[in-house]
Amino acid sequence: MTEAYVLHEYSQSGNCYKIRLTAALLGIALERRGYDILKGETRTPEFLANVNANGRIPVLQIVDRSLPESNAACFYLADGSSMVPEDRFDRADMLRWMFFEQYSHEPNVATLRFWLTFVGEAALSEAQRGQIEAKRAAGAAALELMDEHLAANAFFVGDRLTLADIALYAYTHVADGGGFDLGAYPAVQAWLTRVAATPGYVAMDA
Amino acid sequence: MTEAYVLHEYSQSGNCYKIRLTAALLGIALERRGYDILKGETRTPEFLANVNANGRIPVLQIVDRSLPESNAACFYLADGSSMVPEDRFDRADMLRWMFFEQYSHEPNVATLRFWLTFVGEAALSEAQRGQIEAKRAAGAAALELMDEHLAANAFFVGDRLTLADIALYAYTHVADGGGFDLGAYPAVQAWLTRVAATPGYVAMDA
Repeated sequence: MTEAYVLHEYSQSGNCYKIRLTAALLGIALERRGYDILKGETRTPEFLANVNANGRIPVLQIVDRSLPESNAACFYLADGSSMVPEDRFDRADMLRWMFFEQYSHEPNVATLRFWLTFVGEAALSEAQRGQIEAKRAAGAAALELMDEHLAANAFFVGDRLTLADIALYAYTHVADGGGFDLGAYPAVQAWLTRVAATPGYVAMDA
Repeated sequence: MTEAYVLHEYSQSGNCYKIRLTAALLGIALERRGYDILKGETRTPEFLANVNANGRIPVLQIVDRSLPESNAACFYLADGSSMVPEDRFDRADMLRWMFFEQYSHEPNVATLRFWLTFVGEAALSEAQRGQIEAKRAAGAAALELMDEHLAANAFFVGDRLTLADIALYAYTHVADGGGFDLGAYPAVQAWLTRVAATPGYVAMDA
């Protein structure tokens, strides 16, 4: 059987995992199609023409239409469900954390994991090496902000799991791969445990 | 009279301008409160405690609640209006372009403008100078992707102006301040003219 949804992905990417986790929690089936980003498989002329002109994964294909950007794909899948709040402020506040994730968290926490665990420090360019210290500080600041919020709140928005939690969970739970010590953020650790206990949860390696 | 909405901002920031432009197009009044980011006025203990623990502007204050992240604030203001599509795919596709803006456009196009026009090249750190070339290439790639899309479409999503256009307009129309030549992107230029012709439009300096 052909699924209505095809996820173009790299399985170890947290951005791709967000979409799989959202779909799993909603009981939605996805066909998975893998690309090795380390071999440039998302920069081929065919990928650029047919999947994403931006040369990035994930892309959620919905029948014959393509939706790049992980958080937009999660929004599409969860729109109308309890994972997108009905309240106007809460809905915008959820997006606030999702934009925070893409601007202040992912470029630091995820990029350091990619550089240090997947590419390897020895293979980094001079310019990349020059950014490690700033990304380490900015990533720690993002985790600290999350920890402060989660010390007083069970989830990022309201009293239940929303896409804000999914978006921030994806790279936070593997932040040690970027050299971040999650032991310094106890409220984040307790929240990671809460998210993983959600019925329907799937692990990144599943 | 006290407005229900207070915008904590730096007037020359495109991220702050997005919110003013969205409000103007919707006929919503905002009280503006300015901070000089070059003097660190958004990193004071008072700002961090009362406005945004992330130390960034803009923040949209809605009565007594604060909403950071420019695109989330625009979403709050426009939610339920024609600037947020009713169609499920189009709504997610609008968010796709807004996440693209924050991930692939703003950190390159806006950051180079800030560094070169506001901070000044001589005052940049070694690490910042080492990133100019990569940001120049990534910013040009973002503008090129926009140009390809706009060569075939009047607006980013559907056939009317949405928040995707507002988000991308803010820093694109002043991209020359970061050393980008908009003459290379004719479809982007035609779209800038279309956006500026929208009834209710206000300029960044207004």
